[in-house]
Amino acid sequence: MTASTFAVRREDRLARFMRIRRQTLALCAGLSAEDLMVQSMPDASPGKWHMAHPTWFFELFVLGHDPAYRPPNPEWHYQFNSYYQSVGPMHARPQRGLLSRPSLEEVRDYRARVDEAVGELIERGIDDELAARIELGLQHEQQHQELLLTDLKHAFWSQPLHPVYREAVAAVAASPSVPMRFLPGREGAVEIGHRGREHFAYDNETPRHRTWLSPHALANRLITNSEYLAFVRDGGYRDPGLWLSDGWATVQHEQWQRPLYWQEDLATEFTLSGLRELDPQAPVCHISYFEADAFARWAGARLPTEAEWEDAAASLRAIGNFQESQQFHPRAATGGEGLQQMYGDVWEWTASPYVSYPGFKPLPGALGEYNGKFMNGQWVLRGGSCATPQDHIRASYRNFFPPHARWQFAGIRLGQDR
Amino acid sequence: MTASTFAVRREDRLARFMRIRRQTLALCAGLSAEDLMVQSMPDASPGKWHMAHPTWFFELFVLGHDPAYRPPNPEWHYQFNSYYQSVGPMHARPQRGLLSRPSLEEVRDYRARVDEAVGELIERGIDDELAARIELGLQHEQQHQELLLTDLKHAFWSQPLHPVYREAVAAVAASPSVPMRFLPGREGAVEIGHRGREHFAYDNETPRHRTWLSPHALANRLITNSEYLAFVRDGGYRDPGLWLSDGWATVQHEQWQRPLYWQEDLATEFTLSGLRELDPQAPVCHISYFEADAFARWAGARLPTEAEWEDAAASLRAIGNFQESQQFHPRAATGGEGLQQMYGDVWEWTASPYVSYPGFKPLPGALGEYNGKFMNGQWVLRGGSCATPQDHIRASYRNFFPPHARWQFAGIRLGQDR
Amino acid sequence: MTASTFAVRREDRLARFMRIRRQTLALCAGLSAEDLMVQSMPDASPGKWHMAHPTWFFELFVLGHDPAYRPPNPEWHYQFNSYYQSVGPMHARPQRGLLSRPSLEEVRDYRARVDEAVGELIERGIDDELAARIELGLQHEQQHQELLLTDLKHAFWSQPLHPVYREAVAAVAASPSVPMRFLPGREGAVEIGHRGREHFAYDNETPRHRTWLSPHALANRLITNSEYLAFVRDGGYRDPGLWLSDGWATVQHEQWQRPLYWQEDLATEFTLSGLRELDPQAPVCHISYFEADAFARWAGARLPTEAEWEDAAASLRAIGNFQESQQFHPRAATGGEGLQQMYGDVWEWTASPYVSYPGFKPLPGALGEYNGKFMNGQWVLRGGSCATPQDHIRASYRNFFPPHARWQFAGIRLGQDR
Amino acid sequence: MTASTFAVRREDRLARFMRIRRQTLALCAGLSAEDLMVQSMPDASPGKWHMAHPTWFFELFVLGHDPAYRPPNPEWHYQFNSYYQSVGPMHARPQRGLLSRPSLEEVRDYRARVDEAVGELIERGIDDELAARIELGLQHEQQHQELLLTDLKHAFWSQPLHPVYREAVAAVAASPSVPMRFLPGREGAVEIGHRGREHFAYDNETPRHRTWLSPHALANRLITNSEYLAFVRDGGYRDPGLWLSDGWATVQHEQWQRPLYWQEDLATEFTLSGLRELDPQAPVCHISYFEADAFARWAGARLPTEAEWEDAAASLRAIGNFQESQQFHPRAATGGEGLQQMYGDVWEWTASPYVSYPGFKPLPGALGEYNGKFMNGQWVLRGGSCATPQDHIRASYRNFFPPHARWQFAGIRLGQDR
Repeated sequence: MTASTFAVRREDRLARFMRIRRQTLALCAGLSAEDLMVQSMPDASPGKWHMAHPTWFFELFVLGHDPAYRPPNPEWHYQFNSYYQSVGPMHARPQRGLLSRPSLEEVRDYRARVDEAVGELIERGIDDELAARIELGLQHEQQHQELLLTDLKHAFWSQPLHPVYREAVAAVAASPSVPMRFLPGREGAVEIGHRGREHFAYDNETPRHRTWLSPHALANRLITNSEYLAFVRDGGYRDPGLWLSDGWATVQHEQWQRPLYWQEDLATEFTLSGLRELDPQAPVCHISYFEADAFARWAGARLPTEAEWEDAAASLRAIGNFQESQQFHPRAATGGEGLQQMYGDVWEWTASPYVSYPGFKPLPGALGEYNGKFMNGQWVLRGGSCATPQDHIRASYRNFFPPHARWQFAGIRLGQDR
Repeated sequence: MTASTFAVRREDRLARFMRIRRQTLALCAGLSAEDLMVQSMPDASPGKWHMAHPTWFFELFVLGHDPAYRPPNPEWHYQFNSYYQSVGPMHARPQRGLLSRPSLEEVRDYRARVDEAVGELIERGIDDELAARIELGLQHEQQHQELLLTDLKHAFWSQPLHPVYREAVAAVAASPSVPMRFLPGREGAVEIGHRGREHFAYDNETPRHRTWLSPHALANRLITNSEYLAFVRDGGYRDPGLWLSDGWATVQHEQWQRPLYWQEDLATEFTLSGLRELDPQAPVCHISYFEADAFARWAGARLPTEAEWEDAAASLRAIGNFQESQQFHPRAATGGEGLQQMYGDVWEWTASPYVSYPGFKPLPGALGEYNGKFMNGQWVLRGGSCATPQDHIRASYRNFFPPHARWQFAGIRLGQDR
Repeated sequence: MTASTFAVRREDRLARFMRIRRQTLALCAGLSAEDLMVQSMPDASPGKWHMAHPTWFFELFVLGHDPAYRPPNPEWHYQFNSYYQSVGPMHARPQRGLLSRPSLEEVRDYRARVDEAVGELIERGIDDELAARIELGLQHEQQHQELLLTDLKHAFWSQPLHPVYREAVAAVAASPSVPMRFLPGREGAVEIGHRGREHFAYDNETPRHRTWLSPHALANRLITNSEYLAFVRDGGYRDPGLWLSDGWATVQHEQWQRPLYWQEDLATEFTLSGLRELDPQAPVCHISYFEADAFARWAGARLPTEAEWEDAAASLRAIGNFQESQQFHPRAATGGEGLQQMYGDVWEWTASPYVSYPGFKPLPGALGEYNGKFMNGQWVLRGGSCATPQDHIRASYRNFFPPHARWQFAGIRLGQDR
Repeated sequence: MTASTFAVRREDRLARFMRIRRQTLALCAGLSAEDLMVQSMPDASPGKWHMAHPTWFFELFVLGHDPAYRPPNPEWHYQFNSYYQSVGPMHARPQRGLLSRPSLEEVRDYRARVDEAVGELIERGIDDELAARIELGLQHEQQHQELLLTDLKHAFWSQPLHPVYREAVAAVAASPSVPMRFLPGREGAVEIGHRGREHFAYDNETPRHRTWLSPHALANRLITNSEYLAFVRDGGYRDPGLWLSDGWATVQHEQWQRPLYWQEDLATEFTLSGLRELDPQAPVCHISYFEADAFARWAGARLPTEAEWEDAAASLRAIGNFQESQQFHPRAATGGEGLQQMYGDVWEWTASPYVSYPGFKPLPGALGEYNGKFMNGQWVLRGGSCATPQDHIRASYRNFFPPHARWQFAGIRLGQDR
């Protein structure tokens, strides 16, 4: 984010604010207060928390200097802070599922009150700094929309009754198979990173800088369930030679034998539409870095680097199967020339550890706790998923998760040296 | 429980069934679906689970052979079984807080359906075996009423907002101090254990048998907050010489410095009426066995054995500050001759490990999994608490918890050798 | 131990001191400094530590007031204290295996220097208090002799090469089977506990007191490998109904399927003479309380209480297969009238939790940390084992271990109600 | 390593083999069998194991096809394998300290026998493949020489008596302070990685390839104890804003307050010569990546990338304070033009996660388990330390450790963007 910017008209800014904030509520439609309270593992948070925390973010970073604003309850600060050490102590992350108070109704009221206050602020007119903070808050809200979906999927999967979130639109399609081809990328010095100050970007996408691409190629599409099944059936989960040392330790400790939501029959998977037949041509999903890396080794290939990915993606339009399609599940490639499925469907694990770009400067103050402090032990993912809002994604966007994480919509695109 | 028994008229039986079942709902009045879903530690269960599990018990053990009965959802069996290995696998105990489904409304309907079916069964007339099973189910329901309260207290205390369950009836009283005296008990061979087949008892209270009492005396009343405070201030939590080895390890590991719900100021405690001033004359509460034992050593005394307690209690009426008083908190002794506060207020830790009586026979089948299999590593408590229904308690009643457990309403009566 | 005592002649006292101290060295003969340094689990200690710690005990509690005595190194106090909180901080128990310094040679010298100083003290003549402390030190030394053997067995078993400690004297015998019979015990009020002040006893064996025995009988001999094998083959380790709840959790968590040192073939076991064929008629050994209790339930019997055991043992001579036989392994019963194998071979688990006797008073000061502070979560064992020195045992002797402990020579005698 | 190579004369090869193998024994001189058996944490191994494991490596990978060679004990394979999954199961790493057998004497004999057999093989003449395997074995031996020293330091520090390994040659010097300056590095496309096939390199140093350097500078010398002390005194260990999120969690969980071997007085440190006064001008040592990164942030700088480091180091001679100086401790910079202390003293943490170079190919078969499989969650260190043999190091050498590791001789050189 750069602090001056964004020539946006006042009405547009207000409409955008309201649209994104309303989308969170739309995603919660049909869920009970109980559904929105489940925390099924320390890495996940309850839906109610995903509703409250971005609201707290607006309260703290946007309304904080508005003398007219009265918080409904100042004690809520403590429990809706996530990890901002510089703004005070916080409720322990693994205990977010214990918060029966405030109730869902109170959290809805909280959202409404904050929305009203921010709306008035926008209408009165705001400076660039505040505009930038609101935009950061909206981007942040969108991230929590995605997490709300992935955490809910895990919460529903953890329950014996395996509830359905949204009925599937249609039966599993008999998609045709799209042959995999490797398409060569550019070589030599290229530039990556966010360009210009016109559009929003996180600090970790900057500065734009030169890097060197070695000869390489990228697969034209994502790895399918059917291809991954071949890996499983070939004993992929039983051969230590295919795995990183930490990966093999995880396979053994967690007794991994297949992707997170696949059932033991290797023919059914849990989706946000409940248990469904596995579509052989749909992209494999809910894969850890360890699994993506092992699969690539088994396939005689490797994962792309983030620079390879970004250089290839920069010239493509960021369209695909996003949250807006309301499928909440990746779907099969349809064929065509060039690179397919680069955006949407599943996040693509890259071979790049998540570190700073040369010349990286975090945002000042508490906002700087956003990205930089997580630059250890994580790997970069690119391209967004079927749970990501479409306008949240761009070629330079860097997502990151630890190598054992499986509950995100993450999959595999292969790369290779040339 | 003995399988034939209990000359009870049909109407009385029905009324008793309905009264006890309704009491569970009364305890939940004012609590939201969210409040009833919190599981704040593995030892505790959500209120919704306490509503569902005893219902499942009636469904399985009473309605199981009723061909007319249709369970609302057979899959619920799995998640509402507690620890009955012989009737099938069960949902992991620490994950009861994840169950957003069935909803609170569905659980209320489940209760209503089971109540209706059992009610019809009773009205049609039942044999002694079924009568005994219903009675066991009601006793079981009452145990879960108490746990619902203790688990809710822990759940509310675990939340930053420290909600109030029931407003306190009155301010903390300035009670007069009642002097402690030791009253001698009987010596020699005495009989303890449940007598006769007329009234209900758990299998672990039987058979009635002889045991030998050495010369001893019991304190006339419970240890007060003010007395326990003297122990704290005297460095009780810092002197390893006062503690069992396991107790000292627990003090250090858990960093205990005072009773569970006391605040750091040693003047305030968390109650089911929220944070309140400590009443110096009220019995100290939420004490582990380790603490009770260390306090007794500090005081130059010891805890009573369960035989000493039962022999003394057998001649007293089982009245006191029970759940029915709706205080949900122990209250100060009022003075008088003889043993005070033997029933109600707080469970009294004894110096007796929880083991079987000579000649003990567990109930046959799954019902035998009720008591005997827990006879390891726990200590007996006697007398019931302010969270126990009054008609649930008798002189021979044996409660048991591990020595580190603090979230029950448990306190201290001293004994001594003579 | 009682502080005045023991009309023993000076020479005898010296000879006894030297004999018992030398026996520790004799047990270490043939072991390398490396063998004596292994700590294979937190509950076990290295042999070198077992050589040094009882020496420290003499240094602290006997030589502590001898102005002529100079400790070789005062810093050793810290690392050779076991659990005496009142005499200062101590080296963490699980880290005893890290102590390469002092070396084995230095520890031998330490022993020699302390032996000489104590010997001179005895020769000069000592008062009753000191005599009692020396006797306590020798009893303590004998306990560590047994632990040295059991810990070494575990240490050797933990190594891939499974070393031999002492070559077996003879091949596994084809012992005849001795039929099991239940012999009735006494009923009514009996006295147990250590009698009189003439002979040594630990504080936990006192005071002698009355207790009540219900009608019962004891098996004439120990349970054999062959009988235990039938339990294993009958699915004993797979049926939760046979186990205490904590026991079943341990079976699953530790994946127990047979006694500790039995091999997977159920025909071989690891002994201090290496891997050997299982003797069907020898007593089963290295059994936890959980296993003993489950076996008894499977057999339709129960374990004896410690009072039943002691009352029966009091009239028998304390002879049997002890450390002195140098077999370091239990052996088959040889038949005969009355109770067999009550002393030696294996410690017998009882159905009695380890708690104090009525009127129990621990020794004053640091010596009082010896027994009383462990009275939680453990069960009493009786009779000594093939690793116990014969003159260390008496009818009133109370050993205790937690219910999951398997590395001691512990086995099963059945009891039953009548 | 590249499989053909290395025009070395036969005599030289033999001399080199014997010299390096003998150096391991020289490092063990004066250590007892007990000292060489300590394993003070799972990440460390006993000295005896460091003597045996590289020997096993020669046995397996060099003598494996020599029909004349007879292993002293084939069962040792199991316990001296480190992590080569493809050659069979292995003894659990955290239990290496339990191996009293084989004895130190047997391990010395084992070394002698293997040395003799390899020596004969070399004398008979060997092909390039075998020469390459021997060279890999020697490099591997040298790595374990360094680990032997770092693990021994931790083992001695873990003991209350804090033994001395080698007496210090001289008192702590009053070194003059050398001012820190930033020297600019090259910009643009540069080549890094091992060049040519003439000299040995690990597979992870290849292939040589282009990368892009952004404008930057490197500090002329290492960070000193005195500079690090200023960070400590400024509250460096109490300010979460200075730390990576994982780093801060580690600081809190491990209660870090200073470098690993510094005493609480901040004036003394544990060294291989025992407790010594801290030399203010000597390089700070036994620093984790988390600490190096936090210090750099506090200092307004950053760590160098490995490419920046290598490009700068490539033109310098690899001389410095290595194992050969027998100081076993870093020493103060002496001043001078250009980059100082690039080689030896302490390993320098870089800002580069340990990943493969573009086009990386691991060695085939079991030897390929050497480096590639650890490419997750670790950071690269460069330059060698006072515990590293001098001829083991080169500009392209990549060492790697997880970010919390502190027991290596690792320190800090700052870098900065320009």
